[in-house]
Amino acid sequence: MKFNVLAEMEYSARSAGTIILNIHALRTPHQTVISETFATDPYIKVEELTSVHGENRLMRFEIEEAGTIKVNYQATIDNLCEVKDFTEVTEVPVAHMDHTIFPYLYPSRYCQSDKLYRLAHNLFGHIYNPFEKVATLTNWIHRNVLYLSGSTNSQTSAFDTVTEQAGVCRDFAHLGIALCRALTIPARYFTGYAYQLKPADFHACFEAYIGNEWVLFDATRLVPLNGLLKIASGRDAADTAIANIFGDVLFTSMLVSCELAEDGFTPFYYEDGQLKGLSYL
Amino acid sequence: MKFNVLAEMEYSARSAGTIILNIHALRTPHQTVISETFATDPYIKVEELTSVHGENRLMRFEIEEAGTIKVNYQATIDNLCEVKDFTEVTEVPVAHMDHTIFPYLYPSRYCQSDKLYRLAHNLFGHIYNPFEKVATLTNWIHRNVLYLSGSTNSQTSAFDTVTEQAGVCRDFAHLGIALCRALTIPARYFTGYAYQLKPADFHACFEAYIGNEWVLFDATRLVPLNGLLKIASGRDAADTAIANIFGDVLFTSMLVSCELAEDGFTPFYYEDGQLKGLSYL
Amino acid sequence: MKFNVLAEMEYSARSAGTIILNIHALRTPHQTVISETFATDPYIKVEELTSVHGENRLMRFEIEEAGTIKVNYQATIDNLCEVKDFTEVTEVPVAHMDHTIFPYLYPSRYCQSDKLYRLAHNLFGHIYNPFEKVATLTNWIHRNVLYLSGSTNSQTSAFDTVTEQAGVCRDFAHLGIALCRALTIPARYFTGYAYQLKPADFHACFEAYIGNEWVLFDATRLVPLNGLLKIASGRDAADTAIANIFGDVLFTSMLVSCELAEDGFTPFYYEDGQLKGLSYL
Amino acid sequence: MKFNVLAEMEYSARSAGTIILNIHALRTPHQTVISETFATDPYIKVEELTSVHGENRLMRFEIEEAGTIKVNYQATIDNLCEVKDFTEVTEVPVAHMDHTIFPYLYPSRYCQSDKLYRLAHNLFGHIYNPFEKVATLTNWIHRNVLYLSGSTNSQTSAFDTVTEQAGVCRDFAHLGIALCRALTIPARYFTGYAYQLKPADFHACFEAYIGNEWVLFDATRLVPLNGLLKIASGRDAADTAIANIFGDVLFTSMLVSCELAEDGFTPFYYEDGQLKGLSYL
Repeated sequence: MKFNVLAEMEYSARSAGTIILNIHALRTPHQTVISETFATDPYIKVEELTSVHGENRLMRFEIEEAGTIKVNYQATIDNLCEVKDFTEVTEVPVAHMDHTIFPYLYPSRYCQSDKLYRLAHNLFGHIYNPFEKVATLTNWIHRNVLYLSGSTNSQTSAFDTVTEQAGVCRDFAHLGIALCRALTIPARYFTGYAYQLKPADFHACFEAYIGNEWVLFDATRLVPLNGLLKIASGRDAADTAIANIFGDVLFTSMLVSCELAEDGFTPFYYEDGQLKGLSYL
Repeated sequence: MKFNVLAEMEYSARSAGTIILNIHALRTPHQTVISETFATDPYIKVEELTSVHGENRLMRFEIEEAGTIKVNYQATIDNLCEVKDFTEVTEVPVAHMDHTIFPYLYPSRYCQSDKLYRLAHNLFGHIYNPFEKVATLTNWIHRNVLYLSGSTNSQTSAFDTVTEQAGVCRDFAHLGIALCRALTIPARYFTGYAYQLKPADFHACFEAYIGNEWVLFDATRLVPLNGLLKIASGRDAADTAIANIFGDVLFTSMLVSCELAEDGFTPFYYEDGQLKGLSYL
Repeated sequence: MKFNVLAEMEYSARSAGTIILNIHALRTPHQTVISETFATDPYIKVEELTSVHGENRLMRFEIEEAGTIKVNYQATIDNLCEVKDFTEVTEVPVAHMDHTIFPYLYPSRYCQSDKLYRLAHNLFGHIYNPFEKVATLTNWIHRNVLYLSGSTNSQTSAFDTVTEQAGVCRDFAHLGIALCRALTIPARYFTGYAYQLKPADFHACFEAYIGNEWVLFDATRLVPLNGLLKIASGRDAADTAIANIFGDVLFTSMLVSCELAEDGFTPFYYEDGQLKGLSYL
Repeated sequence: MKFNVLAEMEYSARSAGTIILNIHALRTPHQTVISETFATDPYIKVEELTSVHGENRLMRFEIEEAGTIKVNYQATIDNLCEVKDFTEVTEVPVAHMDHTIFPYLYPSRYCQSDKLYRLAHNLFGHIYNPFEKVATLTNWIHRNVLYLSGSTNSQTSAFDTVTEQAGVCRDFAHLGIALCRALTIPARYFTGYAYQLKPADFHACFEAYIGNEWVLFDATRLVPLNGLLKIASGRDAADTAIANIFGDVLFTSMLVSCELAEDGFTPFYYEDGQLKGLSYL
């Protein structure tokens, strides 16, 4: 399905600095970037880099003097979401797991899976099918954690959220990842554009590694899963920040949008009791 | 300088399981593995993997039934430590930093640099030379943190240690890394064999990225820096565990040793006021 | 029921110091101290104080020089446990609560009830009868938290235990208290001697304020509730430490025992579905 | 010196609830309440209580139905601040300390002195004079912690602030208290009205127990110490909340002021190197 996405950001530099943006849509077998434009005002030479892990597309540019910088990214993107039946899937034992997956098994800054081991096993350890296990823990987060803007900050982690039970999409994703890893299911953070997200913003959710592929889960249930356009994946939000800013540069405003570019969209959400998941490379 | 290293470990499996060991010495331009043997008793087929980040050498093997497993690793290793003068070095701005270095700038599980930003700048922000900056913060850790076996556990992080001021080598390393990253200096965790470490054990310290190379620092000052043989590097201990165990398998005992294999060793430690560091790829 | 209790402690002073012990049985309408002896070897003049909150009996003594100090406390105590039916009890609204109870509603060092508000309400908010509410949360702790010696330390708090789900009696009590307070039910920490505790030691559990009296709960279920002899109550372990030591004095060993002094003991535990509780002033 | 203080608060009740306010000026030998009025609109019967610890004046009232409630408190207060010379003061050993002071030696919800033991001793343990010790740690907080509105929330504690080094008056006070207690100096939280505080608000600072009296310290240095009018003291903010609200009642707005009621005010601040402190019972 084709979507038009837009991200406009404004920064105010009080001196020289460097910005690394991660707002470009990924180019993958499941996601085609049909067209895109990226511009800064004033014009600054931008270097495109590829992240070490994942294939995230980073834009690095240097601000040489104080002033206001505007960034504009627009793209038309076609995503190919595949709905699969996971009724027959079994867990991938670590002994047979592709070793490039290992980093997504270990605890990270915001996903302290080492501290959630007993809780995860107490709550979900009895479920055999790994898709059902992750779907169940995602539902558990949805039921127990309140979506509450402003209730958390950039330091909030899964260890906080599992008890405080309030947060935003980032916190829902971190908790999902931490619970998966505590159950020896690799999981990673997903950032993207999201159709029908209100208010419009970047979105975050997570992918779990089930049956040798990455399957998408979103404990917020705020948007249809097939309306997501992927920007980046990583161990958690520390790896996939929309912007990393170095120097005395302030983020002042942002505008994000994501609209359909063709007809015929049928929203897809997971349904309880159905072992059908969406894979998104 | 040539060293003989030995690691013997014993595990007791109560059922099937998988172990991933990271005890093999790295093979790098600065470290030659002259000879090595690795054996398990009983014999188990072992798969050698290379970690995604760094070139750490992982050994994965599957335990198929309950029982005792012994692991024996022996190697003769020649390390080439280069002492360099960093008097003239300047900071690598992020705008010119090789992007493969970025992950070592971000906070990780045990190195919450995002929480140490003000403290690091208050204490060390005024130092211009980046080598001196890291040497000074390493000394600060050495002076303020008490080396105390048993005072911390596998969940202790830099955020704890900066206040509680007690720990073991792992904690000293995590705090050094977190302070560096808070100062926009990339830093990574180092595990290895260590000559003259008492009691004999694996050791951990850290590397900071200064003047486009990785320079070794050890806030514990327990061993000469040129007596270290590198096993692995990573973001923190979560990336470089000596052993990751999956399944109902218990670690029961360990023996580590590191001895000189030739004459002529002159211990090298950093000295206050000297901007001479040891680079170790 | 009459019990004989004994506590022997040994300290090694490396210089002068002060010890404040809280091991004397409380004297209350529900607990008679029939006889007791307290001695130190060498003899030291001891000052008996009463804690500001509660009526805990503190013994303060000054160690004037380096050496070994032995403390011996023996008592015969008669406790009067009253089993009451709480089927008809309703919550005491804050508007009508005796204000001396307020401190037990607020968060304290080890009982961060402010962080458990949503979790407590999600899990137990729907239960109407306050006794049933506390009994249910006590059972929840018993089912979900593993009793594991050595898994926690003196800094572990309810915020840790609710997620890490392992601990000792102190941690079980702190979590119970924090959950009660999050539900606007006053709760306090209880320390005492415990009949049938294995291995023999001091014990900790908690009291919740229900229907204008303090009712005893023990999430560990390690001992019969009517075999407890109360030493102290307070907001949490910070208020009721067995010993507070000032100066360079080390605790070196301890022996505790609690035996029946008469026949006819019938162990009393709470039973699921029975709204019968034990009040213990 | 005489001051006029005013506090107006507005609450919006969505159903019945209870509010306990702690905004009345304390009546002590050092502070005379010359006149005061307290009113709610609509009129509600208010019960005046005295806190168990300290003599804080609590106003409890019950809101019986949904609606808006306005509270107005006005008072004319005369405070008597005594400036004393502490050059000759020595530490009060625990062996001779009045036992009613003990609770202010122990860790509390926001002042985890048990975690700051080594840090406090490393930084301030060498200072002999207890007034100088507390003055020095207060200056250390002032120099290292940034006053930054909105940087913290109601869960922020001294353990956070000592590392994150940003906060508001409440955080400055908690850190001061925690450092004192880690040094075996009793310390307690102080809330009050503050002359010349901009923007006008309630203020928080702390008292340390030096030479058998409570001496006032304020690491924010935002206001003259002799322009403070005391409302309450307690172990930390958990004991001295301006308002404790039970039920579905929202705090919607507040107005606070503190003005001179007579001429001749000479602002008093501590000066470096001067061992003169202000005692305030």
